[in-house]
Amino acid sequence: MSQVFQDHYPENVAHCYGCGRLNELGLQIRTVWEGDESVTRFLPRPEHLAMPGYVYGGLLASLLDCHGTGTAAAAMYRQEGRAMDTEPAFRFVTASLRVDYLAPTPMGVELEIRGRVKLIKGRRVVVEATLHAQGKATVRGEVVAVQMPESFLSP
Amino acid sequence: MSQVFQDHYPENVAHCYGCGRLNELGLQIRTVWEGDESVTRFLPRPEHLAMPGYVYGGLLASLLDCHGTGTAAAAMYRQEGRAMDTEPAFRFVTASLRVDYLAPTPMGVELEIRGRVKLIKGRRVVVEATLHAQGKATVRGEVVAVQMPESFLSP
Repeated sequence: MSQVFQDHYPENVAHCYGCGRLNELGLQIRTVWEGDESVTRFLPRPEHLAMPGYVYGGLLASLLDCHGTGTAAAAMYRQEGRAMDTEPAFRFVTASLRVDYLAPTPMGVELEIRGRVKLIKGRRVVVEATLHAQGKATVRGEVVAVQMPESFLSP
Repeated sequence: MSQVFQDHYPENVAHCYGCGRLNELGLQIRTVWEGDESVTRFLPRPEHLAMPGYVYGGLLASLLDCHGTGTAAAAMYRQEGRAMDTEPAFRFVTASLRVDYLAPTPMGVELEIRGRVKLIKGRRVVVEATLHAQGKATVRGEVVAVQMPESFLSP
């Protein structure tokens, strides 16, 4: 079984620009567990700049967003003691997003986002995440993710 | 003189993926004043989806982000009673971003973001904005923008 969270999104909800494996023009981020932390690694494209040398903040917000919804889904499987390839599938959407830009993020290096589940309550999961470039934390964020209605997930 | 805020960004800081007129692959958003409100209109591309029929939240965050930094720059010109084509230029970066997703945003329609300046204090401007689709508010956000150091703006 793939360890990548996004590989288990149901086909009809796997088109997201940020994390859908079926969106050919999208970012197609991939997230895995490393212990209790969820980790996404991503190399921005040359056009993803804010100004020469630095990564665009909207892209960084997008990475945190999809990292958060992916972590939320994986956390629900963990809480239920189920593998990610079992039914029913979990898929989350973002209710709110907060992003603090701590320092400029350099272009040309692989970025690493590390997340932690802060809270699981009912259909809601709160994920905190920090983005690092060359070992330095440059962005910190929090995603409040909410489980998608089952009606979206039925084939 | 162009009324579009982003037309007056200095060339060396006009490459932003969200709002740089010189980023050929970027979103190239354009923002104008309508009275005391700043307004950006944008039609998402077909790939900018969250799931079929709905716009990707990361794109919506990106639109609010650049709408906010553009509004911050324009507000500083206004406060100084200067036209946007006068020197020295103003250009802002995002310190923090908060986005609340109120309802799904439909694909296939032009989105309208309307912003207001909440606070100007020193080099910091806080902009509140609401995004509408077909007249319905679907996203609300707040951008804390900070004036870019002059060293970035010199040619």
